[in-house]
Amino acid sequence: MTTAAEFRTETRLDDVAAVRDLAAATGYFSPSEVAIAAELVEERLQRGPASGYEFLYADGDGRLDGYACYGLIPCTLSSYDLYWIAVHPDTQGAGLGRRLLQECERRIRALGGTGVYAETSGKAQYVSTRRFYERCDYATGAVFADFYGPGDDKYVFVKRLG
Amino acid sequence: MTTAAEFRTETRLDDVAAVRDLAAATGYFSPSEVAIAAELVEERLQRGPASGYEFLYADGDGRLDGYACYGLIPCTLSSYDLYWIAVHPDTQGAGLGRRLLQECERRIRALGGTGVYAETSGKAQYVSTRRFYERCDYATGAVFADFYGPGDDKYVFVKRLG
Repeated sequence: MTTAAEFRTETRLDDVAAVRDLAAATGYFSPSEVAIAAELVEERLQRGPASGYEFLYADGDGRLDGYACYGLIPCTLSSYDLYWIAVHPDTQGAGLGRRLLQECERRIRALGGTGVYAETSGKAQYVSTRRFYERCDYATGAVFADFYGPGDDKYVFVKRLG
Repeated sequence: MTTAAEFRTETRLDDVAAVRDLAAATGYFSPSEVAIAAELVEERLQRGPASGYEFLYADGDGRLDGYACYGLIPCTLSSYDLYWIAVHPDTQGAGLGRRLLQECERRIRALGGTGVYAETSGKAQYVSTRRFYERCDYATGAVFADFYGPGDDKYVFVKRLG
């Protein structure tokens, strides 16, 4: 079992493919979203902390079990975006997502962050994602109807850090 | 008086400085926001339509009187972001902002766009900006408390295109 202290924070060259494989394996993301997930890892490799993307990796047995990516939202003082969080289907249900999220929040708080924002779809297949944020004490900050496409709303979840 | 047909849509090299000067002259944007406004123009020059940024320029007498920048929001089918809209202080009050916005909406509709999103601050000095969107039939889609900083909420205005 991965504990918070065991999450890897350094991005390696092979994380580009590992994140692409993991994001695709979840079945939650479109091909263009999977490509963007991998691009953020590439940008971190190329630009380092100046990329604005911080990562947490949960290494599994010969693959990535899960990862999260967060960063300060440009033009804000202390608001952070949870850009990505994903857990491999074979690892889901064991609390890894919650531990990744809590470790993101701990690090964001340590950086002076006052709020965390996470966006997801309102489609039926994302109900477990929305319940996940609610269980982790996120509030529904906004729902934008048909944002991603017809019948595909955008939910914005918010957690204020005390 | 500039009419919709007179707005220039091609970005020129000198627009980088012109947009920077205009954004700064309004007094509405922070230095980092002014820098970002100019960066979007540079990205349009470098990458063309692939940048995802479309521009409308209202050329005045030896300067830019106003401009707007919009584009399809990545990972959406037909939602557009109004990234920037600004009118020179000496030109404000003559309806140029409204004409720029209406021409953006006309072009977005022609591209198959179904929604326009515009973000602004909840601070007192932006009350005229918020009233502008309301007068132009935008709804308040969300308010994120303390998003930009303490006491500086983010308003998201939304207009559904029929």
